[in-house]
Amino acid sequence: MKIVIIGGVAGGASAAARARRLNEKAEIIVFERGLHPSFANCGLPYYVGGKIEARAKLLVAPIEMLRERHRLDVRIRSNVTSIDRENQSVTVQNLDSGESYSESYDKLVIATGASPFRPPIPGIDGSRLLALRDLHDADRLHDLATSSATRAVVVGAGFVGIEIAENLQRRGLHVTVVELCDQILPPWDQEMILPVDAHLRKQGVDVRLEESATSFSEDESGLTVQLHSGKSIEADFAVVCIGVRPESALASEAGIECGPRGGIITNEHMQTNDSNIYAVGDVAQVRCFISNNPTQIPLAGPANRQGRIAADHMSGRSSTYRGTQGSAIVGIFDMTAAMTGLSEKQLQRSGTSYEKIYIHPSDHAGYYPGAAGMTLKLIFAPESGMILGAQAVGTTGVDKRIDVIAMAIQAGMTVYDLEEAELCYAPQYGHAKDPVNMAGFVASDVLRGDQPIVHIADLQSRHNAGDQLIDVRTPPEFAAGHIPGSISIPLESLRGRLDELSTNRPITTYCKVGQRGYLAAKLLNQYGYHASNLSGGYKLWSNVSIRPDISS
Amino acid sequence: MKIVIIGGVAGGASAAARARRLNEKAEIIVFERGLHPSFANCGLPYYVGGKIEARAKLLVAPIEMLRERHRLDVRIRSNVTSIDRENQSVTVQNLDSGESYSESYDKLVIATGASPFRPPIPGIDGSRLLALRDLHDADRLHDLATSSATRAVVVGAGFVGIEIAENLQRRGLHVTVVELCDQILPPWDQEMILPVDAHLRKQGVDVRLEESATSFSEDESGLTVQLHSGKSIEADFAVVCIGVRPESALASEAGIECGPRGGIITNEHMQTNDSNIYAVGDVAQVRCFISNNPTQIPLAGPANRQGRIAADHMSGRSSTYRGTQGSAIVGIFDMTAAMTGLSEKQLQRSGTSYEKIYIHPSDHAGYYPGAAGMTLKLIFAPESGMILGAQAVGTTGVDKRIDVIAMAIQAGMTVYDLEEAELCYAPQYGHAKDPVNMAGFVASDVLRGDQPIVHIADLQSRHNAGDQLIDVRTPPEFAAGHIPGSISIPLESLRGRLDELSTNRPITTYCKVGQRGYLAAKLLNQYGYHASNLSGGYKLWSNVSIRPDISS
Ligand SMILES: Cc1cc2nc3c(=O)[nH]c(=O)nc-3n(C[C@H](O)[C@H](O)[C@H](O)COP(=O)(O)OP(=O)(O)OC[C@H]3O[C@@H](n4cnc5c(N)ncnc54)[C@H](O)[C@@H]3O)c2cc1C
Ligand SMILES: Cc1cc2nc3c(=O)[nH]c(=O)nc-3n(C[C@H](O)[C@H](O)[C@H](O)COP(=O)(O)OP(=O)(O)OC[C@H]3O[C@@H](n4cnc5c(N)ncnc54)[C@H](O)[C@@H]3O)c2cc1C
Ligand SMILES: CC(C)(COP(=O)(O)OP(=O)(O)OC[C@H]1O[C@@H](n2cnc3c(N)ncnc32)[C@H](O)[C@@H]1OP(=O)(O)O)[C@@H](O)C(=O)NCCC(=O)NCCS
Ligand SMILES: CC(C)(COP(=O)(O)OP(=O)(O)OC[C@H]1O[C@@H](n2cnc3c(N)ncnc32)[C@H](O)[C@@H]1OP(=O)(O)O)[C@@H](O)C(=O)NCCC(=O)NCCS
Repeated sequence: MKIVIIGGVAGGASAAARARRLNEKAEIIVFERGLHPSFANCGLPYYVGGKIEARAKLLVAPIEMLRERHRLDVRIRSNVTSIDRENQSVTVQNLDSGESYSESYDKLVIATGASPFRPPIPGIDGSRLLALRDLHDADRLHDLATSSATRAVVVGAGFVGIEIAENLQRRGLHVTVVELCDQILPPWDQEMILPVDAHLRKQGVDVRLEESATSFSEDESGLTVQLHSGKSIEADFAVVCIGVRPESALASEAGIECGPRGGIITNEHMQTNDSNIYAVGDVAQVRCFISNNPTQIPLAGPANRQGRIAADHMSGRSSTYRGTQGSAIVGIFDMTAAMTGLSEKQLQRSGTSYEKIYIHPSDHAGYYPGAAGMTLKLIFAPESGMILGAQAVGTTGVDKRIDVIAMAIQAGMTVYDLEEAELCYAPQYGHAKDPVNMAGFVASDVLRGDQPIVHIADLQSRHNAGDQLIDVRTPPEFAAGHIPGSISIPLESLRGRLDELSTNRPITTYCKVGQRGYLAAKLLNQYGYHASNLSGGYKLWSNVSIRPDISS
Repeated sequence: MKIVIIGGVAGGASAAARARRLNEKAEIIVFERGLHPSFANCGLPYYVGGKIEARAKLLVAPIEMLRERHRLDVRIRSNVTSIDRENQSVTVQNLDSGESYSESYDKLVIATGASPFRPPIPGIDGSRLLALRDLHDADRLHDLATSSATRAVVVGAGFVGIEIAENLQRRGLHVTVVELCDQILPPWDQEMILPVDAHLRKQGVDVRLEESATSFSEDESGLTVQLHSGKSIEADFAVVCIGVRPESALASEAGIECGPRGGIITNEHMQTNDSNIYAVGDVAQVRCFISNNPTQIPLAGPANRQGRIAADHMSGRSSTYRGTQGSAIVGIFDMTAAMTGLSEKQLQRSGTSYEKIYIHPSDHAGYYPGAAGMTLKLIFAPESGMILGAQAVGTTGVDKRIDVIAMAIQAGMTVYDLEEAELCYAPQYGHAKDPVNMAGFVASDVLRGDQPIVHIADLQSRHNAGDQLIDVRTPPEFAAGHIPGSISIPLESLRGRLDELSTNRPITTYCKVGQRGYLAAKLLNQYGYHASNLSGGYKLWSNVSIRPDISS
């Protein structure tokens, strides 16, 4: 058996290493265009920013290890230029000598990843414009960040853009982020990410939303980024991070089928339409685990596991990939945003019906020092209660809750199952009713009709319809800020002031996070009123409504 | 509807609050013997040690809140002395006035918890002997810890004992822990907890295993704890933490059925054999979620959720408790030990067949600063791969992995499902192949026959049978310490030195953590050898074999 792998990093190296374990006798050749296989793409921004000091740390599996330990024939600076499916061979160009040769295969793995998209904007090829994909890019950025450069522009506020912005800022540069969308970190829902946006600005990053670069011009002294709004920014360099595109040209030229967004179409064994050819990682189009729709989510976990599955399958095993569910996380200075499953946006786009709830728990018991708040959003099917997605933003403990819910999604669990979750509890780690339980309680209450809820987006129409909006927080909380049009009836005195309310008009209750609002609505409904609770409470409302100054 | 609840803390207060939400009109009386309902039992040790400074923080839901917010008739200093099932009433003694009265109920919830066991040892009632259950105990201990006391003995090294030991030590006392078992934290398996034991000793705690107190004698100047071994310890006071016993006398006297360990027998709705009477929390015997056997696991999460379920059921809902799976966690200075599901010990005791694997991953990517090691043990059914239990010991990230696996256990998942878990990854939070995936890979490899393993307990018999024990680490690693009888053949040179090995005798390979040992065994087997890998590697072996000095 002769296995050829194109691309020697996350998906490719994982496939190669696993193929070796399963088959000591196979001939396994890995072609890597760059100088280094198996490097830590995900660490690059932190090397630029100095969090990771030693460059050598980025070489996860140095080439000698791949050769000696896994007996892999790793050929670096080797660019595969074409695939000849008929003859089962590839053409490879040695980038040092310039010479090309062909290499046959029994099984081929395409693990070429995805390359940063470079939009066709005037000046895009200038020397002061960078991207960040590999060590070479990282070296250049590292040099710039530690040189006399003082101002940088990051185009694109996806997770790579935000990580780069943070790390350049950490080096003391003044950083401007330009993003076309009306929010940073577009995979998350906007209301969840607004606090992150505010946090980023507080750290001194200049964030420009609904803005784009229309041209770049440079001279010895620097770069001018011309913006769609007519404004312009002077900088020493810019990093373009507006997403990636599957490196699938090689495949499509060989007649391997690709999807509309360029990803190589794969089946559950990671095979392409040519059964001897597999595609894994960022170059592959896979299924979304939840919707079963085609998807491309360029993340390292899926790439690694897909590589392992392709190796299994070519070795005669029936391993399957269950689809990608979109578990992702990003650190933003000391904040964390994590998500799993589908976002509300995605569900809206696909016209899928859903319900959602918000809670604002602390990561661990409030009575133990250091408890830090988070906002957790749970999205679920309104009939079955099946969990469709979750997002959380905060500092500590965010990753844990999203990972737990990721597991629940994998298991096809419902919000009722979250009510029953038995997680570890001691006061420095969580709560006797963990945020995961709490999200389950609230969502289940909603589905059982125990907790009718109103969303912020409905407030206006309810107001127009004559809704009574009741703030059940304490008078000092009310005085410090409240939703316009609301009246103050603290929960503790509500039972004595029922006669101030009308049973004819619907009531919306709210408190800071949603819990007292729920208690208020719950009791009102038992006295014959028609009350619903504002999900997410004043906290979410003020995040969304009293937006930080996010216009440029 | 008139609901009476005996005990006003975790299970009782949760039942009361939920019952109120479901039924605004019910009469709900909560009898609590102590001065405070709804306090943070789990925070008491940290108040003693000063981590939690303000005592008021321990009052999670002050009595006024329970009265005003939930309209609960909370009666403190009210001891329920008997239950009259025929007349559906309880007798209550007002501990301030000394007077007794009776109160009728439609539904009764027994949430009396469990009290610290006081063994019948001479001197056990002395004034220098304390326990830790409630605020009163905590106040006494707090006073002692901040007085002129300098030496304390903690009898019992369960989680409460260890937490108290840590906190007294934090206050500068010299602490001796006396434990009858041959390990601290008996719910965990011994090999997992040895590093915690060593850590505790390193902090200066004097741990005495396989030792017990046989008598206590005291005078003005102090306390002498006489030990089984003949030794004795002088101290200012002792805290007895040798487990708890359900406070079920009240129930059993009323003919409510209790199990052999004293817990009130409950059905899936938390009902006792009297359908109007529920029992929740530490006083209740429930089912083990995994084995379905009766169990009593005194933890706050289950108590809270059981209270909620009892309230549901008496309000006409069909909520059920799915059983307790034993998710538990304890902090030991800066270490963490967590577990979920059954331990190996429990499985051995019940004669259930199981397989297990160990890995030693870091909490996040090694190339990102601050990565901290942990040991993760996964226990699973040898046929189906069903996950039976997991334990982890380390510092950061331990709680997350055990919670994720707890969710997998709840879902009835197998080790094959862990291979497919899609958890959030960025280098400061985890790995592209998360420890949970890695545990799944290794366990699945074992079940599929890809990774034959040997356990430490088998080493001797394999050695006797003429096994070849190969250390595949590097020569410097070998030189720094190795398993007696092993020969050194580094993985990287193994392929070239195959002729040094015999195909007739079984081979055990090992490395530091198990990964290189696996690679070695995997390739050897493909050359016709009969090789297995030592699960957990040299790291686990040295924890177990080069035990810290744990004899007293
Ligand atoms: C800056 C940055 C930060 C990231 N952070 C995270 C994170 O925190 N978490 C996360 O999950 N993901 C992160 N990612 C994404 C993650 O790195 C990718 O999803 C993952 O590496 C994809 O693996 P892959 O094997 O498909 O592609 P890659 O790892 O990109 O490897 C593809 C390789 O193929 C080579 N190649 C391409 N074409 C050819 C050819 N024709 N011939 C020879 N070689 C070729 C390329 O040189 C490249 O080295 C990050 C990515 C970047 C760039
Ligand atoms: C020091 C300590 C630390 C702990 N740490 C943790 C931890 O980190 N994690 C964890 O999960 N669990 C922990 N626990 C266990 C947890 O506190 C219990 O599992 C939980 O409180 C049990 O709830 P419960 O309602 O059954 O009993 P309790 O919370 O004990 O409440 C029972 C109440 O009933 C009252 N009562 C009893 N009999 C009568 C009567 N006849 N009349 C009137 N009132 C009566 C008692 O006064 C008591 O207040 C800890 C316990 C202690 C003591
Ligand atoms: C480094 C690299 C080549 C490793 O590939 P790999 O050998 O498949 O993966 P790992 O080193 O994680 O090892 C996993 C294997 O070791 C086994 N293993 C791990 N720990 C073990 C232990 N303690 N005992 C026994 N086996 C163990 C696993 O079961 C698995 O083997 P399997 O797939 O046959 O079941 C590849 O992951 C890579 O190139 N990574 C860097 C690039 C990258 O991922 N970038 C994106 C993220 S920054
Ligand atoms: C304080 C105590 C009385 C609270 O009981 P409780 O009201 O049932 O519990 P919580 O305060 O956690 O609130 C949970 C309720 O609020 C709801 N809720 C929480 N956050 C919400 C939000 N943001 N929006 C809407 N509803 C919310 C939940 O759905 C749940 O209601 P439900 O059970 O009707 O579904 C009880 O837990 C207690 O006494 N605790 C201290 C003792 C203890 O547990 N000790 C051991 C651990 S130290």
